[in-house]
Amino acid sequence: MTESSTHSAGVAILGSTGSIGCNSLRVIESLTTSRMRVVALAAGSNVERLADQIAAHLPEVVSVDTEAAAHDLRAMLFARDIDLPRIVTGEAGLVEVATHPDADCVISATVGAVGFLPTLKALEMGKRVALANKETLVMAGELMTQAARNSGAELLPVDSEHNALHQCLRGERREEVRRIILTASGGPFRTRNKAEMELASVSEAMQHPTWNMGAKITIDSATLMNKGLEVIEAHWLFGFGPDEIDILVHPESVVHSMIEMVDGSVIAQMGVTDMRHAIQYALTFPERHSCQLPPLDLTAVSGLHFETPDLDRFPCIALAYRALREGGTLPAAMNAANEEAVSAFINERIRLTEIPQIIETVMDQHSNQPVKDIQTILEADHQARLAACAAIAALAHKEAQTAQKI
Amino acid sequence: MTESSTHSAGVAILGSTGSIGCNSLRVIESLTTSRMRVVALAAGSNVERLADQIAAHLPEVVSVDTEAAAHDLRAMLFARDIDLPRIVTGEAGLVEVATHPDADCVISATVGAVGFLPTLKALEMGKRVALANKETLVMAGELMTQAARNSGAELLPVDSEHNALHQCLRGERREEVRRIILTASGGPFRTRNKAEMELASVSEAMQHPTWNMGAKITIDSATLMNKGLEVIEAHWLFGFGPDEIDILVHPESVVHSMIEMVDGSVIAQMGVTDMRHAIQYALTFPERHSCQLPPLDLTAVSGLHFETPDLDRFPCIALAYRALREGGTLPAAMNAANEEAVSAFINERIRLTEIPQIIETVMDQHSNQPVKDIQTILEADHQARLAACAAIAALAHKEAQTAQKI
Repeated sequence: MTESSTHSAGVAILGSTGSIGCNSLRVIESLTTSRMRVVALAAGSNVERLADQIAAHLPEVVSVDTEAAAHDLRAMLFARDIDLPRIVTGEAGLVEVATHPDADCVISATVGAVGFLPTLKALEMGKRVALANKETLVMAGELMTQAARNSGAELLPVDSEHNALHQCLRGERREEVRRIILTASGGPFRTRNKAEMELASVSEAMQHPTWNMGAKITIDSATLMNKGLEVIEAHWLFGFGPDEIDILVHPESVVHSMIEMVDGSVIAQMGVTDMRHAIQYALTFPERHSCQLPPLDLTAVSGLHFETPDLDRFPCIALAYRALREGGTLPAAMNAANEEAVSAFINERIRLTEIPQIIETVMDQHSNQPVKDIQTILEADHQARLAACAAIAALAHKEAQTAQKI
Repeated sequence: MTESSTHSAGVAILGSTGSIGCNSLRVIESLTTSRMRVVALAAGSNVERLADQIAAHLPEVVSVDTEAAAHDLRAMLFARDIDLPRIVTGEAGLVEVATHPDADCVISATVGAVGFLPTLKALEMGKRVALANKETLVMAGELMTQAARNSGAELLPVDSEHNALHQCLRGERREEVRRIILTASGGPFRTRNKAEMELASVSEAMQHPTWNMGAKITIDSATLMNKGLEVIEAHWLFGFGPDEIDILVHPESVVHSMIEMVDGSVIAQMGVTDMRHAIQYALTFPERHSCQLPPLDLTAVSGLHFETPDLDRFPCIALAYRALREGGTLPAAMNAANEEAVSAFINERIRLTEIPQIIETVMDQHSNQPVKDIQTILEADHQARLAACAAIAALAHKEAQTAQKI
């Protein structure tokens, strides 16, 4: 990527029609000092947006979820008189996009566990991975970082907190860092009590105070599981142990994260809440390229505030620290249970406050294994989803019974 | 200094009985992971405190202002049965301390222009200079930085703002920094209006909200000339032009300074308001050593606030930018006029709001010269002091006349 000014770097995007994917394309379009070429795109089933992206960027390969989506996409491109790229599908399609020979950098921005295998393949091939899919590292941090070490691949975080930590750590020595501090907006329930949180509707939980993101991550931000996942992600990215990673609630989301050095000095990275900054950083590192977005205006912020997270109202944080401490396949199981529970909440099958209950049930039942290979993790993921679905069904059944009695 | 863990580094302190000097000795005493040895001390006339320092650190050479002070010191050491070091006096004494052959690092912490020559000599000898005396760089930044370049000496800032900038800039490329942002507490008159400032007493002006410092710098903080001097200091330390250096008022003094990168990212250094952090950083760089001071607790701060400085109430800022832009001997003249005006204010000869008036008068009268050598600067300093004294006398005379008429 350092040769970006002399030749155009190839970029592949996993999850191109999502929030990070769209912003990545905007960054690539806006970069005037560094030429990047989109060589492959992978999306789910939003073929209309994908068709627009194909028309604008002319990738060689695109991947969609299913054969049906592929059919729709072909028809749409034909109708709009756009040259057909090679169209592939499913997990094999995602892997083909992630391992495209002309892709120097892969932006891994699918939601949830689906990005796991293609991201691993990209790392094994030594490609730079700009990682927005934190579940990938939560599930299989050991395999991912080992693959990167073996091939010499760079793993650069797009999550604003980890991107901030990457920036803070640039000039510092690992052994001179006392701890890293992830900031958290606190989500829409920061100032609500437990009773209010129990009755929270999906639309309330979707009201993120500072960041505009996808549904799954927004619910994770409401339960603060997002921060828990980020603790595990930070461990794998930067090599800090659970006792060296702290969380501070910072409602304004101006300080994206901080590090505290052994001499007491704190280095913080700040910026506006626009994912394009982190995406651009991950694409152009170690260079920084000029950016047309309005700069941070600290005088326009009414103040920057910091509080300790409330572990009682947000039990997901403790669950994530527990998963990190116990290690093995437990983080993968926790992640899978969380995905199922969040999905059940979005479908109004369970309450917001039942998400951590489901996760804890699954974690308690989980038979923890050392991570040997992908199969171990996929099996843990699968078993945890089954356990989560059972726990969700049991809760939903109980709820229905209670409703009937009333 | 990188060998600090294998041999004990020699330290000389200019201004050992002042605020920075005393804190420097406390840092040296507290460093358990790096051995430092005090080889020479220079103080003014506080021989009692100096005697304590000699008893504790056994320097080989000490310097005091005058023969009278030297006599007092000898008597005191004799009475306390402390072995006499070599005792020297005046500017020659300061230079002897600064150039002590066993001093690897010189902490330059005298107040005002007196530190100029000894600091230059230390730089010429290739010694690391930990610089707390910002007037030195304001007067003769060109000569100082050139001396450092020629000899390979390191110039490390002890001023908390510049120390913060040094930390922020560690992992970054100069050409990728869009601007540097010095924070200012805003001083005791941040929320006062112009009329209140005109009537400000010396004791009111001495009430610094966040830092506990010497008299001259505290008054400079009340007029914000301190920040103006720091703008010029930052220019020489880091090579940024006047349009790339900004000031933000930040009443809590938690963020010690910041840099904004071309991609919009802001890197900030934060810490508690204790000069020992910056002193230790300058002594141990590029290493960071563990520090026993309580760490920064952001949850204990009610909030971090930022405002644009009011150039109307604090005209010293614009005067400093003007001096930096026009260059030559004008910054030295401005600095000299400021020292005289501050001294006149402390002696209740002029009002606080007359300090910038005196400085502006002197700057307007100054015949600007390119900086060729020390003599040019010393001459500019001398002429500016004469002009300032005349302006102060004229003001005091006018004031007396007005008082008589009433």
